[in-house]
Amino acid sequence: MRPSARLLATASIAMLASASALSAQSGPEVARAYREAHEPELVRDFAELLSYPNRAFTPEIREAALYIRDEMRAVGVDTELVEIEGASPLVLGVLEVPGASRTLGIYVHYDGQPVDPSNWTHDPFDPTLYTRAMEAGGTPIDLPTDGAAVDPEWRLYARSAGDDKAPIAAILPVLRSFRESGVTPTSNLVFMFDGEEEAGSRNLQQYMEMSADVLDDIDVWLFFDGPAHASGRPQVTFGVRGSFGMEVTVYGATRNLHSGHYGNWAPDTGNILAHLLASMKDDAGNVLVDGWYDTFEPIGAEERSALDAMPDWDDELKRELGLVRTEGEPESLPERLLVPALNVRGITSGNTGSLAQNVIPNEAVAALGIRMVKGNTSEQLRELIVRHIERQGFHVVEEDPDLETRLRYPRIAKVTGGRGGSVAARTSMADPYAQSVLAAAHRAADRAFGEGSLVVAPGMGGTLPLNLFTDVAGKPAVVVPVANHDNNQHAPDENLRIANLWYAIDLYAALMTMPVTVFVP
Amino acid sequence: MRPSARLLATASIAMLASASALSAQSGPEVARAYREAHEPELVRDFAELLSYPNRAFTPEIREAALYIRDEMRAVGVDTELVEIEGASPLVLGVLEVPGASRTLGIYVHYDGQPVDPSNWTHDPFDPTLYTRAMEAGGTPIDLPTDGAAVDPEWRLYARSAGDDKAPIAAILPVLRSFRESGVTPTSNLVFMFDGEEEAGSRNLQQYMEMSADVLDDIDVWLFFDGPAHASGRPQVTFGVRGSFGMEVTVYGATRNLHSGHYGNWAPDTGNILAHLLASMKDDAGNVLVDGWYDTFEPIGAEERSALDAMPDWDDELKRELGLVRTEGEPESLPERLLVPALNVRGITSGNTGSLAQNVIPNEAVAALGIRMVKGNTSEQLRELIVRHIERQGFHVVEEDPDLETRLRYPRIAKVTGGRGGSVAARTSMADPYAQSVLAAAHRAADRAFGEGSLVVAPGMGGTLPLNLFTDVAGKPAVVVPVANHDNNQHAPDENLRIANLWYAIDLYAALMTMPVTVFVP
Repeated sequence: MRPSARLLATASIAMLASASALSAQSGPEVARAYREAHEPELVRDFAELLSYPNRAFTPEIREAALYIRDEMRAVGVDTELVEIEGASPLVLGVLEVPGASRTLGIYVHYDGQPVDPSNWTHDPFDPTLYTRAMEAGGTPIDLPTDGAAVDPEWRLYARSAGDDKAPIAAILPVLRSFRESGVTPTSNLVFMFDGEEEAGSRNLQQYMEMSADVLDDIDVWLFFDGPAHASGRPQVTFGVRGSFGMEVTVYGATRNLHSGHYGNWAPDTGNILAHLLASMKDDAGNVLVDGWYDTFEPIGAEERSALDAMPDWDDELKRELGLVRTEGEPESLPERLLVPALNVRGITSGNTGSLAQNVIPNEAVAALGIRMVKGNTSEQLRELIVRHIERQGFHVVEEDPDLETRLRYPRIAKVTGGRGGSVAARTSMADPYAQSVLAAAHRAADRAFGEGSLVVAPGMGGTLPLNLFTDVAGKPAVVVPVANHDNNQHAPDENLRIANLWYAIDLYAALMTMPVTVFVP
Repeated sequence: MRPSARLLATASIAMLASASALSAQSGPEVARAYREAHEPELVRDFAELLSYPNRAFTPEIREAALYIRDEMRAVGVDTELVEIEGASPLVLGVLEVPGASRTLGIYVHYDGQPVDPSNWTHDPFDPTLYTRAMEAGGTPIDLPTDGAAVDPEWRLYARSAGDDKAPIAAILPVLRSFRESGVTPTSNLVFMFDGEEEAGSRNLQQYMEMSADVLDDIDVWLFFDGPAHASGRPQVTFGVRGSFGMEVTVYGATRNLHSGHYGNWAPDTGNILAHLLASMKDDAGNVLVDGWYDTFEPIGAEERSALDAMPDWDDELKRELGLVRTEGEPESLPERLLVPALNVRGITSGNTGSLAQNVIPNEAVAALGIRMVKGNTSEQLRELIVRHIERQGFHVVEEDPDLETRLRYPRIAKVTGGRGGSVAARTSMADPYAQSVLAAAHRAADRAFGEGSLVVAPGMGGTLPLNLFTDVAGKPAVVVPVANHDNNQHAPDENLRIANLWYAIDLYAALMTMPVTVFVP
């Protein structure tokens, strides 16, 4: 079903336009006042949202989609399901503002990671409120009734509490408060709720093509996803890394050989692989693959000064993780996330421990994990790695070599995988839309967490399908997380700290009413 | 039960002494004539011997021991079971020759590797005769009746046919022929049949201590075990390598880390291990551990010229195994077996293939296999390896490090194992007893396989409990194999080529009647 932009455009605008003149309060003030007056109700509403099972590609996820559609409609957003057979529905909503010269795209995903209830303290879809985090000694309490005081340190436990239903639970009251108080957003708003993010957003590109008439108008995308900085401070970020895996197999004899009968003579596959891997990266963490650091877009002045302003969290992390030395020291973690990474994510050869045998294994395999930054492609980096392997004296193949091939080349490496993968993306912090978003986020963070609390990270280490928005659709995109950093994302006992929901309300109200002036380049 | 040397000494000597004057034929001539006259019977006797199940530590292995004892007694050897509760019996036989100034110890093992009958063409204890090897198109035939012609290319299939009952099937007719023709061995003979070799000969040292009054008189040990050279030519060898394993674990963070969030910053355990392993051995196969090549006894002139005379079999092996280059080239396999070896027998870190995950594994483990030669001890080589690891900048521990330790040292390696193991042994080819054995083996090989056919290897690559004889008991020892090289030792469809049984009869007759003169140093 394809949403009709024309149809969507006519719905709720009239009401919003007529109400806009009634209020003298700013959007953030209105939203905060509404929140303060309705805290128990908002916690209960959030719990109701969390009670919908939401694993991608399950039949029941459509119920969650319908619930979100109806809630969005109830706050005046023209919302439809866009559907592809066999896929999880995309929920698409449009709120047009007469005279608005700018359109914000807001991305949220409503699907969640798979759950194994046996690992959870409570049923992951029976949201349970705690007085604080379980690890901090929190105890379960009933959902609050109207008029009860709500402690912002409470935590609501359920799958997707942090990743990524909290934004939905904040968008709804913001829009409701605007409606009730006659606040007009300063931009047209397009809401996209992805139902397959945790399953790789595999239909997202097609969904975006199907919705092109709505999406083409968007000027800047806001990604409402991810956790706050590890320090607990709120964060915005402008990019994600891409990722791909490849595998290298080196060969010895055609079969495992007895280490007594052949040891000292037969090629030692573990040692051959060790030399190859050691040739790829030095002990300090510098990748030695020729051309590796010539492949990506360097950061600009804005990114450089954002990095300099970031909290120094490395020492804290190293203490937590038991590390004395990290790769690329003295560069910090945030700096290192802006450079492509080459890691060994696995090695398999023979056996260790009680399974170790007196053999010389006939092959040794390394799985490499590559993290790309803007400017990299997997094709380009794969090619550099293959050339590097060849320069180490290996004949590179893509299938296990036959006897004839083995008898022709003293060193053979099979390289598999390494094509495709997820793509890196980064929006320049110099982009004027990005600058406006940043200014609004600073205001909301100052208000909710204190002056100067916002952490601005030029890029994050993980992956998101951001490139569909930045590179395929050609728009700037900013990732604006709200969840507490310890929300147990992807794990059992996922939770949201209520204070972070309140922050989301402040933040979204600020973003939806941010001044337009800056947007004219 | 401890055999009484005095009692054993009195039994069959009188008969042999009285018969010795009757024959003008040499021992080898007598044995060969006897064999030629009894070939069908000898094949049937061998089949009967092979029908006794013989896995160490099973109740039925005692039946096999009793059978051997009775057969040995029947050819005039005073034979007893020596027993330790819960162990497989040692069968010990003594044949004293009046006036003999020399005593040969003959080691054979009568136990066999475990069998999985479902992998065998026939029941492993229902010996089956084939017209030739199965792989060469042989077909099963009935055991020959008296008077039938016996083809030396026939193969008898059963567990232990090659490893190691063939020597028993050859010792018996040699002694029987000597008895019937009045041939007197030129040495006293002590026969030791080990029932636990395939299970590590774990009681052998105690059995040897229990039998010290018999064994102390032995001048030289003959090991009737192992296969011929891969070329098919007969072989003798003077040493075995020792073996031990150890394991090295290197550490990253206290837990697996997400390669997106931490890649390029968190220590890359696979790469750290690669650098460490690569530092231990160069790409040509030379061990770089300081002192590694200062630890063992170098070979002498006899060994050097034996090596030079060995058939060049490397090219054949490399063709078979799909290898262009071997470690230590241009040195040959036999030369490389005389030097201690350091191999990677396994590496485990994270996962590869479909199980590979986007993590930086928190540790990487390498299992090392070390093969020692005479002069090495596991304590000594382990210590060199630990020092080497320390020189690469690692703090070496023996238990997983706690957080405090992790926060103190930038690089930590846990080293486990590496103590004990099996011990290397080598008898100098310059030893006068060894020289006599070599001369007799040359004569038998010349006769059975053609002039100059004997391959003389200063040492073999595998392990045997030879050091109990050479180092603990302080005697020279020579390994004198007879089985065809393709006997499927330790595998299903184990077999012996009948020509190799005939060679064993020639060889043992030569050894039992070799001149004494050389034995006086």
